[in-house]
Amino acid sequence: MADTLAAIREELSLANRILAHEGIVDAFGHISVRHPGDPGRFLISRHRAPALVAPADILEYTLDTEPVHPTTFRHYGERVIHGCIYQARPDVMAVCHHHAPAMMPYAISRAAMVPVYHLGASMGTRVPFWDSRDDFGSTALVLVKPEEGRSLAKALGNASTILMGRHGATAVGTSIRECVFRTIFSCKNAELQTQARLLGHVEPLDAKEVELAAAYNLRPGPLERAWDYWAQRVRDAEARVAAAPKAAAARKPAKAARKTPAATRKRKR
Amino acid sequence: MADTLAAIREELSLANRILAHEGIVDAFGHISVRHPGDPGRFLISRHRAPALVAPADILEYTLDTEPVHPTTFRHYGERVIHGCIYQARPDVMAVCHHHAPAMMPYAISRAAMVPVYHLGASMGTRVPFWDSRDDFGSTALVLVKPEEGRSLAKALGNASTILMGRHGATAVGTSIRECVFRTIFSCKNAELQTQARLLGHVEPLDAKEVELAAAYNLRPGPLERAWDYWAQRVRDAEARVAAAPKAAAARKPAKAARKTPAATRKRKR
Amino acid sequence: MADTLAAIREELSLANRILAHEGIVDAFGHISVRHPGDPGRFLISRHRAPALVAPADILEYTLDTEPVHPTTFRHYGERVIHGCIYQARPDVMAVCHHHAPAMMPYAISRAAMVPVYHLGASMGTRVPFWDSRDDFGSTALVLVKPEEGRSLAKALGNASTILMGRHGATAVGTSIRECVFRTIFSCKNAELQTQARLLGHVEPLDAKEVELAAAYNLRPGPLERAWDYWAQRVRDAEARVAAAPKAAAARKPAKAARKTPAATRKRKR
Amino acid sequence: MADTLAAIREELSLANRILAHEGIVDAFGHISVRHPGDPGRFLISRHRAPALVAPADILEYTLDTEPVHPTTFRHYGERVIHGCIYQARPDVMAVCHHHAPAMMPYAISRAAMVPVYHLGASMGTRVPFWDSRDDFGSTALVLVKPEEGRSLAKALGNASTILMGRHGATAVGTSIRECVFRTIFSCKNAELQTQARLLGHVEPLDAKEVELAAAYNLRPGPLERAWDYWAQRVRDAEARVAAAPKAAAARKPAKAARKTPAATRKRKR
Repeated sequence: MADTLAAIREELSLANRILAHEGIVDAFGHISVRHPGDPGRFLISRHRAPALVAPADILEYTLDTEPVHPTTFRHYGERVIHGCIYQARPDVMAVCHHHAPAMMPYAISRAAMVPVYHLGASMGTRVPFWDSRDDFGSTALVLVKPEEGRSLAKALGNASTILMGRHGATAVGTSIRECVFRTIFSCKNAELQTQARLLGHVEPLDAKEVELAAAYNLRPGPLERAWDYWAQRVRDAEARVAAAPKAAAARKPAKAARKTPAATRKRKR
Repeated sequence: MADTLAAIREELSLANRILAHEGIVDAFGHISVRHPGDPGRFLISRHRAPALVAPADILEYTLDTEPVHPTTFRHYGERVIHGCIYQARPDVMAVCHHHAPAMMPYAISRAAMVPVYHLGASMGTRVPFWDSRDDFGSTALVLVKPEEGRSLAKALGNASTILMGRHGATAVGTSIRECVFRTIFSCKNAELQTQARLLGHVEPLDAKEVELAAAYNLRPGPLERAWDYWAQRVRDAEARVAAAPKAAAARKPAKAARKTPAATRKRKR
Repeated sequence: MADTLAAIREELSLANRILAHEGIVDAFGHISVRHPGDPGRFLISRHRAPALVAPADILEYTLDTEPVHPTTFRHYGERVIHGCIYQARPDVMAVCHHHAPAMMPYAISRAAMVPVYHLGASMGTRVPFWDSRDDFGSTALVLVKPEEGRSLAKALGNASTILMGRHGATAVGTSIRECVFRTIFSCKNAELQTQARLLGHVEPLDAKEVELAAAYNLRPGPLERAWDYWAQRVRDAEARVAAAPKAAAARKPAKAARKTPAATRKRKR
Repeated sequence: MADTLAAIREELSLANRILAHEGIVDAFGHISVRHPGDPGRFLISRHRAPALVAPADILEYTLDTEPVHPTTFRHYGERVIHGCIYQARPDVMAVCHHHAPAMMPYAISRAAMVPVYHLGASMGTRVPFWDSRDDFGSTALVLVKPEEGRSLAKALGNASTILMGRHGATAVGTSIRECVFRTIFSCKNAELQTQARLLGHVEPLDAKEVELAAAYNLRPGPLERAWDYWAQRVRDAEARVAAAPKAAAARKPAKAARKTPAATRKRKR
């Protein structure tokens, strides 16, 4: 179990950096995984930008989003999104919440998002739309209360991606890799749908095509091929930085200017 | 005070490079901060592109935009934007003026800019529009006279972002970090609004949502998380260059071709 | 022949990485070349993302898409696209299949793609549209059966680029370099056509202009100039990574987290 | 003169790489400068992509576009664009021809390009449109005959930028730096105009604003500030590559695969 947990921490932290490198998340957004040995727990980074997440940042929570181990780290405010979906959906092993620029226009305009190419089929035929106003009126839009998380999970139902009005989107998967694949290709699908719409017509996949194409592309082969590609891209980018640790250190701002030493000191280069 | 000033210079120069790295400013645009110990002064870089600003480039000005210390450096032509806003708004501690490609279409088309997602709420409900033609007729569009700066500050009123017709935008903040956060996420908001409009409908946040979401996101936690992310991105990019100082030096053009030695000689790598 | 084959493997693997670096392919898409000494065979990478392809990844197939040499490597599912086109078109020496974001909106909207500038003329006057629904009804959209490949090759006819409904596009050439040139500039042409359409009018080249401009730009001079440029870009990017082999190695995830060791172990960096 | 010529070669080769790095030119496009000591000659690179141009690539031509010194290098096909403009416009010291993606939609749609912000004013109030069909009927669109160059120069008149139907654009300047500044900011202006148009309205600068803003921004101060910025960006990118010369060399393809040794062997990296 210890070995498996270490591997999961590595994979989840890499998933964070992949999503950042592919432009899905920026300073905000997060991805979690259900605990491999205890379905009543999940793992997610402490409060920090996905691009900066290292294995040591991964914390453990109960599905009620209480930290399992005491920590001085700050937590993500929206971790109820994860806990509530794991509670409602025993089949879900990974959850990603983001505000990707490709998908946000659909969350703002309420235009329906549909699969327009075989790789976009991985998001499923139906993408439900959840609006915090329906159950909670005017809020800060972020989900911080358990009832908000439960409302979202209910709206998600058995779908695999959900749009959140004026806020973002959330995708689920049966593994970290499937969740990352679905998230990235759903965003590409959204970009393509927008462009096709500007050309005057959107011809979506039919239901049978969605089903067949999703089954084809979510097999281990394509999932691994895409994961290897994204992983190599982020590692290449990091290798370039790693080549110059001393030079980088020499350019660090003076201590007095650094308000968040804890946040950066732990980063392993 | 000496320590604080050094830290402020570091932070302001980093803010310059963050704004450049995130695509908000290019060769032009600038960000300033009110002097931490004297509300009658502000700090801003000498005349140079934000991407190149180092702590030693930061100069001190009175609110009438006179340099406090004699210098042979060239000054920004538009520093009245900063001085006049600091005079009119005692609550403002930082000012950023830019021509970001995301926001310019609104400055050109006069389409109203509205918060369309929680992070965009940081720009406030109302974004006033200022047109140099109204008070000054046909000009070079840049603001170089005190009366132009005062006219802009008056139009800004108690808002936190203002559009400037056929020219750009200016944002203010209660700190450098808040000002950078507001500037970057207002630009992302503008991009998303444009895309949503192309999809046929823009559903903005309501006034209560703007207020709640702005309050949530401008807390120290989210501000630091975003700042750490942007700072790391720019430092990573700079570390890559710093790894090859000799090679870089070897490719410098012949002296005869360099017309601006002072501008580049001072840059610390 | 051994020397030539080694050179072809180098060139084909470089073509893969060029197409990835220029944003034509991502985790998916592939390019092949007909065997220089045996027109009944073709060469294409084993199943992996084009950005990662090295000469040792290039495998040999018959035109019936059977591997010539036994291998434990996984194969591309869609290699019938290549085999069937080589069977139908003796003049074709290279084939590229992709889902480039510039061209996909045309594959989704069925808007006609036309040459709008001299470099886009390289795709030819006529770009046929093939829809898997016509011959096969609802499928997973990918082409994995010989009859699917033959249907596509028939629709291609004597054209040099074909759109594939809700899926992608395929381009052919009389050499790897011509195929890469046509693919990249057809995608740029598609982007420009989309933007011109948004401005209200698309004025295409007339048939004579297409013929003359294609002949001019597909001469060895322009082909080499473009190839040298793209090759240098990808080599520069790779050189940056190669500068830090140890640092990169130090950041590899723990073994337990790596599900696809074979896929990455062979990569020479 | 020898010193000056060496400096001009350095500056022109840097201008080439700046234009490539800022996305104005790709494999194609070129920039020239009038000979500093002989107004009857001009300097331009031999036939190669601008990103790869080094000082040793710069050749000298008469205004009839004949090479001054014998050379085995290949020449640009379209150098009549440069020679004919230098003949017609004694005030012009630099010429840039490109197919920038920002400006091409205007060359394809014939939509009028207008200055929409102060920096775009540098392209002038009037941007003429030249169509090769008017004087020459259906051609390959490229300008290779003296009469084609003269026709373009006549259409340019006393303007500083001209659109070329289904082909590209050409800009002139009183110096390399002014020409580069005008080219880059005209392209940014085109992008902003397109986006404003999508928002529903384009409010251009009035004639007086164009005149004043152009005069303000084309002064030495802003020109140098922008040049320093672009030069630093391209040098930073090159420094990253220069850090790994051995690693890069180790990845060169086998000799047999290299068809253009002369083109790459001379490149100093």
